[in-house]
Amino acid sequence: MGKMKVGIIGAGRIGKVHSQSIMNHIPEVEIKTISDVYIDVAKEWAKKMDIKEATSDYKEILNDPEIDAVLICSSTDTHAQISVEAAQAGKHIFCEKPVDLSVEKVEAVLEAVKEAGVKFQVGFNRRFDHNFRKVKEIIDTGKVGDLHIVKITSRDPAPPPAEYVKVSGGMFLDMTIHDFDMARFLIGSEVEQVFVSAAVRVDPAIGEAGDVDTAVINLKFTDGTICVIDNSRKAAYGYDQRVEVFGSKGKVEVANDTPSTAMLSTEEGVFSDKPKYFFLERYMDSFVDEMKDFMDAVLNDKPVPVTGIDGLKPVLIGVAAKKSVEEGRTIKL
Amino acid sequence: MGKMKVGIIGAGRIGKVHSQSIMNHIPEVEIKTISDVYIDVAKEWAKKMDIKEATSDYKEILNDPEIDAVLICSSTDTHAQISVEAAQAGKHIFCEKPVDLSVEKVEAVLEAVKEAGVKFQVGFNRRFDHNFRKVKEIIDTGKVGDLHIVKITSRDPAPPPAEYVKVSGGMFLDMTIHDFDMARFLIGSEVEQVFVSAAVRVDPAIGEAGDVDTAVINLKFTDGTICVIDNSRKAAYGYDQRVEVFGSKGKVEVANDTPSTAMLSTEEGVFSDKPKYFFLERYMDSFVDEMKDFMDAVLNDKPVPVTGIDGLKPVLIGVAAKKSVEEGRTIKL
Amino acid sequence: MGKMKVGIIGAGRIGKVHSQSIMNHIPEVEIKTISDVYIDVAKEWAKKMDIKEATSDYKEILNDPEIDAVLICSSTDTHAQISVEAAQAGKHIFCEKPVDLSVEKVEAVLEAVKEAGVKFQVGFNRRFDHNFRKVKEIIDTGKVGDLHIVKITSRDPAPPPAEYVKVSGGMFLDMTIHDFDMARFLIGSEVEQVFVSAAVRVDPAIGEAGDVDTAVINLKFTDGTICVIDNSRKAAYGYDQRVEVFGSKGKVEVANDTPSTAMLSTEEGVFSDKPKYFFLERYMDSFVDEMKDFMDAVLNDKPVPVTGIDGLKPVLIGVAAKKSVEEGRTIKL
Amino acid sequence: MGKMKVGIIGAGRIGKVHSQSIMNHIPEVEIKTISDVYIDVAKEWAKKMDIKEATSDYKEILNDPEIDAVLICSSTDTHAQISVEAAQAGKHIFCEKPVDLSVEKVEAVLEAVKEAGVKFQVGFNRRFDHNFRKVKEIIDTGKVGDLHIVKITSRDPAPPPAEYVKVSGGMFLDMTIHDFDMARFLIGSEVEQVFVSAAVRVDPAIGEAGDVDTAVINLKFTDGTICVIDNSRKAAYGYDQRVEVFGSKGKVEVANDTPSTAMLSTEEGVFSDKPKYFFLERYMDSFVDEMKDFMDAVLNDKPVPVTGIDGLKPVLIGVAAKKSVEEGRTIKL
Repeated sequence: MGKMKVGIIGAGRIGKVHSQSIMNHIPEVEIKTISDVYIDVAKEWAKKMDIKEATSDYKEILNDPEIDAVLICSSTDTHAQISVEAAQAGKHIFCEKPVDLSVEKVEAVLEAVKEAGVKFQVGFNRRFDHNFRKVKEIIDTGKVGDLHIVKITSRDPAPPPAEYVKVSGGMFLDMTIHDFDMARFLIGSEVEQVFVSAAVRVDPAIGEAGDVDTAVINLKFTDGTICVIDNSRKAAYGYDQRVEVFGSKGKVEVANDTPSTAMLSTEEGVFSDKPKYFFLERYMDSFVDEMKDFMDAVLNDKPVPVTGIDGLKPVLIGVAAKKSVEEGRTIKL
Repeated sequence: MGKMKVGIIGAGRIGKVHSQSIMNHIPEVEIKTISDVYIDVAKEWAKKMDIKEATSDYKEILNDPEIDAVLICSSTDTHAQISVEAAQAGKHIFCEKPVDLSVEKVEAVLEAVKEAGVKFQVGFNRRFDHNFRKVKEIIDTGKVGDLHIVKITSRDPAPPPAEYVKVSGGMFLDMTIHDFDMARFLIGSEVEQVFVSAAVRVDPAIGEAGDVDTAVINLKFTDGTICVIDNSRKAAYGYDQRVEVFGSKGKVEVANDTPSTAMLSTEEGVFSDKPKYFFLERYMDSFVDEMKDFMDAVLNDKPVPVTGIDGLKPVLIGVAAKKSVEEGRTIKL
Repeated sequence: MGKMKVGIIGAGRIGKVHSQSIMNHIPEVEIKTISDVYIDVAKEWAKKMDIKEATSDYKEILNDPEIDAVLICSSTDTHAQISVEAAQAGKHIFCEKPVDLSVEKVEAVLEAVKEAGVKFQVGFNRRFDHNFRKVKEIIDTGKVGDLHIVKITSRDPAPPPAEYVKVSGGMFLDMTIHDFDMARFLIGSEVEQVFVSAAVRVDPAIGEAGDVDTAVINLKFTDGTICVIDNSRKAAYGYDQRVEVFGSKGKVEVANDTPSTAMLSTEEGVFSDKPKYFFLERYMDSFVDEMKDFMDAVLNDKPVPVTGIDGLKPVLIGVAAKKSVEEGRTIKL
Repeated sequence: MGKMKVGIIGAGRIGKVHSQSIMNHIPEVEIKTISDVYIDVAKEWAKKMDIKEATSDYKEILNDPEIDAVLICSSTDTHAQISVEAAQAGKHIFCEKPVDLSVEKVEAVLEAVKEAGVKFQVGFNRRFDHNFRKVKEIIDTGKVGDLHIVKITSRDPAPPPAEYVKVSGGMFLDMTIHDFDMARFLIGSEVEQVFVSAAVRVDPAIGEAGDVDTAVINLKFTDGTICVIDNSRKAAYGYDQRVEVFGSKGKVEVANDTPSTAMLSTEEGVFSDKPKYFFLERYMDSFVDEMKDFMDAVLNDKPVPVTGIDGLKPVLIGVAAKKSVEEGRTIKL
């Protein structure tokens, strides 16, 4: 019997990452086709990776009866539309985050997926990171007790260009959305209230584009846990990705990963490595693991580890966060 | 010429700490008299420490022309009254925190001190802690750049009895007040807005006493810095006292002190020490250093390192924090 | 133009590791044939990995004119013989460590390689480990100054079976040989004197097999650096792989890698991860990187990063170490 | 009843340290007299510390019937002679290390002490250090199992002047003697064999003075433990004082103490504190604790924690170490 065939829609950075994960680590799966609106990009990558077919039209993938599952790695504004079409075509779907910036559109996707009875996994890869997964495991052992306070630090090494900011949906839907997912993943409960302190401190151009670049977000969960996320679009020392979970029996926390453990001591002081530079360096293994889990869910008809609801909820929280900044008050969900 | 003579009002735990600091580390100063409403306590301590006189009436100290300075270490509700009287008696004053739970009374003290022209230092000892002082020094070098986000973690190892909670003025004025001072000390600016998420998670008796035991406090400073403090009345692993300061050029953070650096690796894992147990273990050196600075200010007519305004501001913030919890909204100062 | 074709001799654990490195990370190279004395092992792996041919006779690889390079991953006692034949067949060679336990045989290999003018790289993969490479880079910047003392800790998580010990050539040639290479790599000088303190502390069966399982090895280098290696066949907490380099201007040291950075604090203490379990977990990336460098040397006619001399010298040191234990004295090289 | 009275012989650095420990921390003891060959030094210190009497003749202390115990803090070459006289005068003795550089003289002291039936404690203060004491405690719980390898790192921040080196007895008796004691303390067994690799790498003047400044010392203990000590007279980054104990069930290790836990992360990297500068900074608390234990032993007739034998053995090891360097071979004890 042959390998399961999949198609990748979008040959940008993340589409490339997923195609490498599949080729190097998932021998049961074959990437048959890759599509991109820029046909040259698709062709070049297909050639390099020995992918049979390249196309500029993702519908060729959806219409291919040999293909069982699709990875939607195109631009954010196309995720919802393609997801709906893919569900209708009976394909299992791995969709990059965010599913959409509009709550209604995400809901439409979930509806279509439900009707079609296909698998639908959202690309919240950080759940698969070795550090955060370990935190979750420790919480699940009960060693931290009931959760009281969860702190998430999430800072990028460099701000995106203002052009990107304008179409990004704003920091909360573009960047914090990962942290909202992390909070839900770790706490295992839902947000009922959001309060945000935000500012433009990194780059005035971001402010001119109508967004913020620095924020502290307070979330109150239905189980009583208080969560606080702090974000910055620019940490001079690199990608800062940490969590600390405090509960009735203790706390668990994770530090950043570093390129090496080397520590140099001289007359001037003690020097060690900065965090791994950005998400490709830090999270590469998690991209592989989320893909393995998705393929396992499809091949063996298991539940996906990150569901459509997991795709929807962070959008709701992100929208509330935005409103909290605009209105300067607490928003209930 | 003889030593400068001082009196200590209150022979409880903190009064004893200060008397030891003076006897062991400040040879230029002699404790002439110690007072306590429980005369036996005062007498016993005086005997043990070779302090000449013990009394149940602090006014004997205020009326003693040989005494130049007093340490007010009595119960919180007496701080303001004694401070005013001491100022009127022309004594230099070291007053334990908080000066009072009422803003008006604190203001009355500042007025009396100003009129008398005496030194007045408030006992925010954490400013003198080796870790926090180092953070401040690094901020002052400019290596962190403009401050964007300041995070303060402050958790006690065990909650106080409900009896104490009832008269404590509430967690924000009793415990967080140190953190408000730390925030002002590190940021060097004033709070303009307070938002608090709080809950009773540690002990229902604290809730019944009308207080909270778990909180995340957001402060917005006039210079644009966002500060977030997280508090718990009970950290199972001990006294958790950390700060992290994030700015345009980097971050500086401090970890807890531990009894030893020992690390044991076995088949079961890697084990290391919990933080030093509580404030006497963690902050002993800082008590010595604040006392040295106070005596230096008095002996050499220098400015005190923690002023009356530094005593007042945290009370204002604490009152606002309480109001934020009660009204579920942001409070402007 | 097609890919460069290589053959792998030996389909055991390390042969499999190298074949995965090539297939997943070196698209310019194709594994044409894999051989193993157990033909079923070779066939099964070939099938799983899409390797065209499997054989029980490595000579088919040596005689294949399409094949440019071979990886010698068979049992240690065959390395030298196959290396000589491969050189005579004009193949570039990557040979696992140790090249041989006999100095004469290693020298014969080097001679054959020299005559044939082929590339010859020895599998000292630890040079490619992210931590040790970083140590080397820091030494090369001059920040440590002249080297005075180098300390290498190398402890296995579990002892090999006594059966293996009997044919292993002894701990110094089987296990410490990696540390001898590390010492030469970091110090960049040659050993002139060896002194060993050794004992049987882990397993009496190892002693009965004529070997030791615990040792501290002192090496004096021609440049004056003193190196001390400590070995154990069994560290209860896992694979312990560290170095510390101390010089006139400072020191650089590396800690073990861990599965995660999670730290759990409870009433009982602070718990963190043990080191990654063994060499496959710890050194996987280094196996990839040594293979990349070998292929790059062959494809682009560059010098190999670990030479035949690098294969010979540690054998000489290992033989001296053995002698030092037997005679209870310092051995000069 | 009055306080126990003691005399301090030698008002140099360590005599001052001990007098402060007593005055600030041991209220049961009074320093009646301090002596120093430089009478002005003794007088000045006596005045500053409110010590009743100062003298240039230590015999006044020995002849004073009110004095129960003496601290011998004079120059090393006088320790043995004064110890014998003090024993004969019936005084309990705390003697700084080393007791003497000559084995015979140390033995004579032990003999005199035994005859007089007085307490005799040697100033190996590091046993009282919080880190090393914790290591010992963990060993004693059995969690490390049988000891296999013990590693001690002991490096000074700056070399002594060559003048001092000439009269110091050499690095092994002057500096390593502390490490020999630490090894015996932790392992709880005796050295049977010594091998040293040593060199002059820090300062040629030290070589010209007939000493070494860099060494790796191997000790074999009667219980089978192998111990390796590494010394340098100059670590550019400061005082480096660590141990690692490896056994059948795990390892325990301690890091250096630092002035603060502050960690600064910037674009350039992550910076943290160097170790505490030198022994006064690092070991101050241990000096207090050894003094408390000595006074407790005298006052309550308990055994001293560091005995005369503990004073003798390291001298024997040090002499053997010297011989090992001179003869380039292993020395048996």
